[in-house]
Amino acid sequence: MIRVAIIGATGYTGLELIKILLRHPEVVITTLTSRSEESPHVSSVHPQLRGRLDLRMADLGPKEIAKQADVAFGCLPHGVTAAIVPSLLEAGLKVIDLSADYRLDDPAVYAEWYGHTHDDPGRLADTVYGLPELFRERIRPAKLVANPGCYPTSAILPLAPLLAAGLIDPTSIIIDSKSGVSGAGRTPKLSFHYPECNESFSAYGVGKHRHTPEIEQILSTAAGKPVEVIFTPHLVPMDRGILSTTYSQPLKSITEAEVMEVLREFYRGEPFVRVGSNLPATKDCSFTNFCDITARVVRGRILTVSCIDNLIKGASGAAVQNFNLMYGFAETTAL
Amino acid sequence: MIRVAIIGATGYTGLELIKILLRHPEVVITTLTSRSEESPHVSSVHPQLRGRLDLRMADLGPKEIAKQADVAFGCLPHGVTAAIVPSLLEAGLKVIDLSADYRLDDPAVYAEWYGHTHDDPGRLADTVYGLPELFRERIRPAKLVANPGCYPTSAILPLAPLLAAGLIDPTSIIIDSKSGVSGAGRTPKLSFHYPECNESFSAYGVGKHRHTPEIEQILSTAAGKPVEVIFTPHLVPMDRGILSTTYSQPLKSITEAEVMEVLREFYRGEPFVRVGSNLPATKDCSFTNFCDITARVVRGRILTVSCIDNLIKGASGAAVQNFNLMYGFAETTAL
Amino acid sequence: MIRVAIIGATGYTGLELIKILLRHPEVVITTLTSRSEESPHVSSVHPQLRGRLDLRMADLGPKEIAKQADVAFGCLPHGVTAAIVPSLLEAGLKVIDLSADYRLDDPAVYAEWYGHTHDDPGRLADTVYGLPELFRERIRPAKLVANPGCYPTSAILPLAPLLAAGLIDPTSIIIDSKSGVSGAGRTPKLSFHYPECNESFSAYGVGKHRHTPEIEQILSTAAGKPVEVIFTPHLVPMDRGILSTTYSQPLKSITEAEVMEVLREFYRGEPFVRVGSNLPATKDCSFTNFCDITARVVRGRILTVSCIDNLIKGASGAAVQNFNLMYGFAETTAL
Amino acid sequence: MIRVAIIGATGYTGLELIKILLRHPEVVITTLTSRSEESPHVSSVHPQLRGRLDLRMADLGPKEIAKQADVAFGCLPHGVTAAIVPSLLEAGLKVIDLSADYRLDDPAVYAEWYGHTHDDPGRLADTVYGLPELFRERIRPAKLVANPGCYPTSAILPLAPLLAAGLIDPTSIIIDSKSGVSGAGRTPKLSFHYPECNESFSAYGVGKHRHTPEIEQILSTAAGKPVEVIFTPHLVPMDRGILSTTYSQPLKSITEAEVMEVLREFYRGEPFVRVGSNLPATKDCSFTNFCDITARVVRGRILTVSCIDNLIKGASGAAVQNFNLMYGFAETTAL
Repeated sequence: MIRVAIIGATGYTGLELIKILLRHPEVVITTLTSRSEESPHVSSVHPQLRGRLDLRMADLGPKEIAKQADVAFGCLPHGVTAAIVPSLLEAGLKVIDLSADYRLDDPAVYAEWYGHTHDDPGRLADTVYGLPELFRERIRPAKLVANPGCYPTSAILPLAPLLAAGLIDPTSIIIDSKSGVSGAGRTPKLSFHYPECNESFSAYGVGKHRHTPEIEQILSTAAGKPVEVIFTPHLVPMDRGILSTTYSQPLKSITEAEVMEVLREFYRGEPFVRVGSNLPATKDCSFTNFCDITARVVRGRILTVSCIDNLIKGASGAAVQNFNLMYGFAETTAL
Repeated sequence: MIRVAIIGATGYTGLELIKILLRHPEVVITTLTSRSEESPHVSSVHPQLRGRLDLRMADLGPKEIAKQADVAFGCLPHGVTAAIVPSLLEAGLKVIDLSADYRLDDPAVYAEWYGHTHDDPGRLADTVYGLPELFRERIRPAKLVANPGCYPTSAILPLAPLLAAGLIDPTSIIIDSKSGVSGAGRTPKLSFHYPECNESFSAYGVGKHRHTPEIEQILSTAAGKPVEVIFTPHLVPMDRGILSTTYSQPLKSITEAEVMEVLREFYRGEPFVRVGSNLPATKDCSFTNFCDITARVVRGRILTVSCIDNLIKGASGAAVQNFNLMYGFAETTAL
Repeated sequence: MIRVAIIGATGYTGLELIKILLRHPEVVITTLTSRSEESPHVSSVHPQLRGRLDLRMADLGPKEIAKQADVAFGCLPHGVTAAIVPSLLEAGLKVIDLSADYRLDDPAVYAEWYGHTHDDPGRLADTVYGLPELFRERIRPAKLVANPGCYPTSAILPLAPLLAAGLIDPTSIIIDSKSGVSGAGRTPKLSFHYPECNESFSAYGVGKHRHTPEIEQILSTAAGKPVEVIFTPHLVPMDRGILSTTYSQPLKSITEAEVMEVLREFYRGEPFVRVGSNLPATKDCSFTNFCDITARVVRGRILTVSCIDNLIKGASGAAVQNFNLMYGFAETTAL
Repeated sequence: MIRVAIIGATGYTGLELIKILLRHPEVVITTLTSRSEESPHVSSVHPQLRGRLDLRMADLGPKEIAKQADVAFGCLPHGVTAAIVPSLLEAGLKVIDLSADYRLDDPAVYAEWYGHTHDDPGRLADTVYGLPELFRERIRPAKLVANPGCYPTSAILPLAPLLAAGLIDPTSIIIDSKSGVSGAGRTPKLSFHYPECNESFSAYGVGKHRHTPEIEQILSTAAGKPVEVIFTPHLVPMDRGILSTTYSQPLKSITEAEVMEVLREFYRGEPFVRVGSNLPATKDCSFTNFCDITARVVRGRILTVSCIDNLIKGASGAAVQNFNLMYGFAETTAL
């Protein structure tokens, strides 16, 4: 049995991780940390877990965590994780980090978008980006995996095959994304106060969202050349789910059938990507680790529509998929 | 034109008041106060008001308010209002207070349920409870009106006629109420964070909710004898609306038709109470000042179902109804 | 491997059953029936199942079903099931029926509440009601199990212990229930059209809901004497979840702690009933087979608040729990 | 007083029209038609109107309508209206048609997108498109006004100024729109069944939506040259509101401030268009006739974000705005 620690278990990604891992036959959750001084029982923070997991959260350091666990899932906010990951790795743990701290290769880009210098810059270039569909073989042996962001997962999966095949102009890409509110985390704020965001739809962070460089970095890798995107996130009055609509300019005339064939071929055999002809709804993959993708050609432009559950394929499900790869379990275990 | 001040205009009742009063042909809103130091423009706090009201909020004292206004609507939290109402009245303003501060007659009951002694206890016994359907003639000449709570309005309107007619046992009453989230106000808290309360339904404050003594006091007045109720509030994942289901024991056998007739007769001519045979939905009176009521007799017990918009008939609409009575305007003006 | 047929697989309970059974290590789903002539692929009806179950729905008779399956889950509307259950049983299948057809013992009561005579009246008295917490030992050997209704499950679980212990007046019980919209099934109707029921809360079927005699029958069994209830269902703008608030008169004075102890003792060791002191929210048990229960004593009356997921513990999860009992699998398998 | 008929009053646009017109001091609603044989009272169809409008709906012909009314608002589905408008006009009525029947200039384009030949093709070219911000002077004297579609209003208002100023490439435009469910009308369908579309977000009609030629026609008029757009509608789990995000290629380099200035200048003095620097949410203009617009420049591309209430500015509010223009009332009356 692999002993698992979840660092920062009070949020939504922590909760989803616990629910998935409780179904995993090779895992025992031994450690939940939170920065609270009160060491609450996990079921008082997450009532859904009553009778399912009998653990208290504690404010533990890396060495204490290492005594109790073989692997740590980092569910902390960005900027906090990088301060402790070196100690966790040094203590012998494997780490799957769900924050943004190790996703970007370049400390300068990190500093530009996140507004502070990185605490562990030397490790950035070598850390693998935990998107199994693109980097499966690099994930297997990794000690540290940077789990992808939710928006990036929804946008990279439909676009990477088109860029890898050289079908589209890498500077023409528009990504119009829509996310449920759980993507904003569990800290109460006016914007996410029920009567403010219920019965409302809004755009936010236009041109400034931190997932932009992450998307561009991975798509550039897929394309083998620099990719620039316009990324516009929107907030949908629902708990979970992301739908991304992308628009890009083909480099030569192409049919819808040809685009679909490129997508189908790229994801043949992938357990969690479903390429289909129907327009997907986020509910089709809610509470699952699937990404649903389709494509259209409209007035000569290629459109893709893709859906994920932001907390599963966009966070905790992908993290367990990475965990399975790192430990040699069947990739779909518990998912 | 009556010059209106709204004291504490940043919340939902303040916003609804402004929207109603902007339609009132005899009103000019001159003053909006908030305890913020920044004197924000009202449209930066309430984007709905952009282009509709050009005022800044300011942290003003009673004398300054009195220079600019004839009447003040109090939209502050309970416990704060009673500290300033005496000065407002002394400065010559009429006051319609939407907080709970002046609703209870007895300072001891106030202290018991609100956990602190009242700042202006001498005024409690004489302040009129601003439910026009019961106290219209006392409201007209009043200088200070205590605007009813949202749950109490939804529960008192169906039950008062039955108690006034001596039809039901005054110790048998159960009130099972369900409210949209705007009733909880605009301050972000975990309980009202979108992903917490969306797609969920819960009971809260069972046996302890502060509207209990308010309901009992007014129903006792209607009955002419002490009334005790069990009041159970619940939170519904929607913005607005309250539905209250009440259960009471008739003192002698009675038919549904007889109960309906008592209700219809009691509210004949009332502009904002609609007694009907259909089971109402909260949406039927959303964004209106109506209260919809029906009754059933099931296994010998009398059931009533009543709906209001918690922010209109349950707060700001009722306040304007009271305002119209106090100034001699048609009671339905702007409503 | 047990071969499973789902009769009437196009609705929500069918979908949930499939999702649960796909996780069951001892089950293979071999047969999905629907009355459609088109034999659609299950994933075209339920896009959530794309890539997870490769079956077509077909309009099959009992003999054909019996060739392919060992057990049939009936997900048809009431009135249809009783016409085919005799043939299914005769063909050697075990049957777990999620409709209301075999829940009532008395054909006369069925006819009164469902408006037509029962097609298989002789089997009613002996069919076990599939609520494991009350009838586990009768379920194990059964060939036919009548799976409980969603509202009844939410109401019986908190009340049966109080009645069994003789604590409450069996004629005093009020059940005020609130359900998400999936309880109404998947057939489009104006009442469940999104813009009609979203942002609205309503009561329906007051005094007339067909779950009333079902609740009374099982509670009478628990009490050992006739029980009468007032049952008021309400519609909540959310997908899933039922919360029932019950009110009953204790036969002698009792404390909250004593009530809680009766509940805790009754459900000690039960895998899916969580008795706790906190007021539960439906979200705490959404997508799980748990029932959360608490109690309060208010003004001498006993209140209980209980939550279930109407499609899981209130339908498909309970059906799999029964299946596990009938086949000797661990009761929690796949749940 | 102008006597108003509403043709096809059972849907959402009919209801909103009634609610707005009940506030209009110069209007009396005399006639409500519906194709039902039962002549239901309007309050049995729309419970919100109980006690507010005492009329029955009837299945009346143009001559009967003309006896009772001066002006008819057409709220019928497309394809039905054009069959009766000639008779209504001949009978002396003015007509404001909320359907799509008279929006397109070219009968061939109508036939291509709507799948049948137009019943009144000769009138198409001369009918004014009822968007006051663009065609106010042509609306004033009109006998027949084609009220704009909801999506087109949300897309044309931000884009027309940019095209009129020659700032953007007329073949580069992408319109990514998101609408609440009331836009789909009041007829129950599986797609709009609450448990299907709640907690879900989806795209639909990609590349095929009938509002595409309407948007292109009006934008071409604004640009003075042919405009082609990619229009992608999405369904948001909320009652009302449309947000459109547009992307277009400037013909020469331009700053955000310059774009904003073009928008502000174009709409200076317009009572219902609010150009502002903040990103708007649909809730900011819910239940109002406002359109909120902002713009951004991201990676050299111009983005606009615009919001309307689809039933008010996108339908019934705009219709009353047109009515006010046609009868010489203040344009904002009742709005």
